Amino acid sequence: MYKIAVLPGDGIGPEIVPEAVKVLEVVARRAGIEFKFTEALVGGAAIDACGRALPPETLELCRQSDAVLLGAVGGPKWDALPPEERPETAALLPLRKELGLYANLRPAYLFEPLADASPLKREIVSGTDLIIIRELTGGLYFGPKKREKTEDGEVAYDTMFYTRAEIERIVRLAFQIARSRRRHLTSVDKANVLTSSRLWRDTVESLKGEFPDVTVEHMYVDNCAMQLVRRPTQFDVIVTENTFGDILSDQASVLTGSIGMLPSASIGGSTALYEPVHGSAPDIAGQQKANPLATILSAAMMLKYSFKMHREAAAVEDAVGRVLAKGYRTADIYVPGTKLVGTAEMGTLVRREL
Amino acid sequence: MYKIAVLPGDGIGPEIVPEAVKVLEVVARRAGIEFKFTEALVGGAAIDACGRALPPETLELCRQSDAVLLGAVGGPKWDALPPEERPETAALLPLRKELGLYANLRPAYLFEPLADASPLKREIVSGTDLIIIRELTGGLYFGPKKREKTEDGEVAYDTMFYTRAEIERIVRLAFQIARSRRRHLTSVDKANVLTSSRLWRDTVESLKGEFPDVTVEHMYVDNCAMQLVRRPTQFDVIVTENTFGDILSDQASVLTGSIGMLPSASIGGSTALYEPVHGSAPDIAGQQKANPLATILSAAMMLKYSFKMHREAAAVEDAVGRVLAKGYRTADIYVPGTKLVGTAEMGTLVRREL
Ligand SMILES: CC(C)[C@H](C(=O)O)[C@@H](O)C(=O)O
Ligand SMILES: CC(C)[C@H](C(=O)O)[C@@H](O)C(=O)O
Repeated sequence: MYKIAVLPGDGIGPEIVPEAVKVLEVVARRAGIEFKFTEALVGGAAIDACGRALPPETLELCRQSDAVLLGAVGGPKWDALPPEERPETAALLPLRKELGLYANLRPAYLFEPLADASPLKREIVSGTDLIIIRELTGGLYFGPKKREKTEDGEVAYDTMFYTRAEIERIVRLAFQIARSRRRHLTSVDKANVLTSSRLWRDTVESLKGEFPDVTVEHMYVDNCAMQLVRRPTQFDVIVTENTFGDILSDQASVLTGSIGMLPSASIGGSTALYEPVHGSAPDIAGQQKANPLATILSAAMMLKYSFKMHREAAAVEDAVGRVLAKGYRTADIYVPGTKLVGTAEMGTLVRREL
Repeated sequence: MYKIAVLPGDGIGPEIVPEAVKVLEVVARRAGIEFKFTEALVGGAAIDACGRALPPETLELCRQSDAVLLGAVGGPKWDALPPEERPETAALLPLRKELGLYANLRPAYLFEPLADASPLKREIVSGTDLIIIRELTGGLYFGPKKREKTEDGEVAYDTMFYTRAEIERIVRLAFQIARSRRRHLTSVDKANVLTSSRLWRDTVESLKGEFPDVTVEHMYVDNCAMQLVRRPTQFDVIVTENTFGDILSDQASVLTGSIGMLPSASIGGSTALYEPVHGSAPDIAGQQKANPLATILSAAMMLKYSFKMHREAAAVEDAVGRVLAKGYRTADIYVPGTKLVGTAEMGTLVRREL
């Protein structure tokens, strides 16, 4: 029996998460195992209920679970709060840090039937299948930061700080993931300018001997941002610093058609966290318009990374592929000539293909 | 009489720069003014000649000139050097800093005949006309940095440091430029996570009262990376921190077809610097294959920003547009059905249209 913490969150969260839970239930039944789901509050819903975006009970539940499935957090209702107190920041950052989730995995995979929905030309995006591994508990996000008045006026700073050990663990993980894929690793940094990037690059160099079967390339972050648009098919696994990863993974997420398709996993601690890349989409919340596929694919990542159920994970991904191939689309990926369906309907279609 | 320092640099630099110089000569003749051009070494060529990527004589010449036209620096010959000693880093960073060039202006403008060469679908990229204004002498590039061994092992850091005054001058410039365009300013930061971004955002807020005719929007950097691909036409002027600007402007540069089309200006000091966005392209150097249009368009920016010759600047841009509309292309923007020309030929065509 595996314990799964379920945090629907805000906006479309409560609509999409149940679809993924039901997929996991089908998988469990087939595999003859049991998942025990426990719901908890997070984000704006938690702020409203108890004044905190990440209540201690929720964190405790996550700690005691084998995996966490999260929907999305935030919305206009809480936009009057200072940026650092909004649900996204005040829930997600401490959750990652507290659970020790140092690696954020974000695949950008093109389901070929969706090439029309991509902003990129078909011949550019076709075949895209990459994963960005973002360092998630260090770097510019968590280094020393301060704002103060000095003799020279007001100043503020943040620090991109890394220890060699922090870099080693994420890079080693990236090498291992590259090994399970096409064996090509692109390490992204700004080593021509940043000292922390030089430590990053040296660390990658020092580890590559352990993975002789993986080819390694170093790329500057500005060039990577360019190459992701120019020729995304050149990438297999990308590993990079927290802030660089935040930017590049959001950029990559739109290449493949819709951010509504993209799952993520945050791993490294004892309990991993799975969530769609998209936000809470308050504008369409409660209307059964949201695309549940990113959450369903996040559940597939859970099967793979938390429960080592590789076959079952692949089955879920294949089911999603078949539903798309049959022409079913939620509004975010709809193009004329396809069949428009709602959130629950899309979930049912995927389960039927399982 | 205006004095212009000419630094061709490496690779294709010595092929493209003369084409822009000749355009400036035509402009001067028509306008009845005089430009005095003086050449100097920079980059790898300078390393080879005197062991320094930015020789003191070159810097001195730049200081005494009214504007600087630079080609490109770097190449495989110097790639064995540590990243921070390579021509790009060791020439460009100190040149910017010494000349006080705190604002890097990078337009991404689609010449409509080139929509086919863009990785984006025509309906997405058509109409793109934005400019990124990147802070260039502060932020993560120039804040305190260090690498050291501690009890916890090796560590390294860089600091994203800003004073309110540094932010004010670049934001004010961005407002002014927005005023001369479509009056929409997007300030890009990561204020939900970074303290320096909060100072950035507050500074923008404190200045906007001075520019009531400009609409201002704040956008997180990850979202901006996404929006640039999803819908680039939503942007007019983008202003942002040094590293964010490095990443976003390189990303934006590929949207419009070819990086071979994109000019830049670095301004703020007494002498401004103009250079194409692309690099020295050593693979095609010496073959008359390079696209001189980015350098020619950089010369147009010089006319506009250094010499206030707005009409002449527009005339150069229009000439480039007409040459493209007539179907002439260098190799980087060639598609079947257009007419392939070399570097010098493209330069001649533009001058003929002037
Ligand atoms: C909400 C925000 C703090 C978060 C981040 O920057 O990490 C988000 O952009 C993400 O990528 O998960
Ligand atoms: C060469 C490098 C130091 C430089 C930078 O990062 O500023 C380049 O990428 C640029 O954008 O001009």
